[in-house]
Amino acid sequence: MSEENIVYIGNKPVMNYVLAVVTQMNGGVPSVMLKARGRAISRAVDVAEIVRNRFITDAEVGAIDISTEEVSSMEGSNSNVSAIEIQLSK
Amino acid sequence: MSEENIVYIGNKPVMNYVLAVVTQMNGGVPSVMLKARGRAISRAVDVAEIVRNRFITDAEVGAIDISTEEVSSMEGSNSNVSAIEIQLSK
Repeated sequence: MSEENIVYIGNKPVMNYVLAVVTQMNGGVPSVMLKARGRAISRAVDVAEIVRNRFITDAEVGAIDISTEEVSSMEGSNSNVSAIEIQLSK
Repeated sequence: MSEENIVYIGNKPVMNYVLAVVTQMNGGVPSVMLKARGRAISRAVDVAEIVRNRFITDAEVGAIDISTEEVSSMEGSNSNVSAIEIQLSK
């Protein structure tokens, strides 16, 4: 992806991801995609809200997409997990 | 809201909310709004995905909106919490 960077949201503290997004956008990246699965979905929403409310106030939330992904466990069974993609642009 | 019912997603098991949504939509409500805050946001995405993948396959996810709400604690201090609204229509 040329003009668009992806930040995967996991289980680290929210501010780690906020910093990653802010650094990219202040470095000239106009659009960042946040991706998260399962319980990290709430954190992805937190990241988007904190970035646009506190750090980059001209950033806008674009398309938000939800989906289901299949995850294979180590025992070989498959389970479904929800996922979210949130686009942040300025 | 006349044509649109709201289901608030909390900390109960996912299937409780899935059942609430499916019951409404099968009862003739064309559009249901899922609302959740904080950690329940992930559950709201799960509910939307389970409803449209397993129960009402012609249901579509419409507008998804995220926001920040201010919550007052019992000690009188205010804190911010992220919120999501997911529209499901058929």
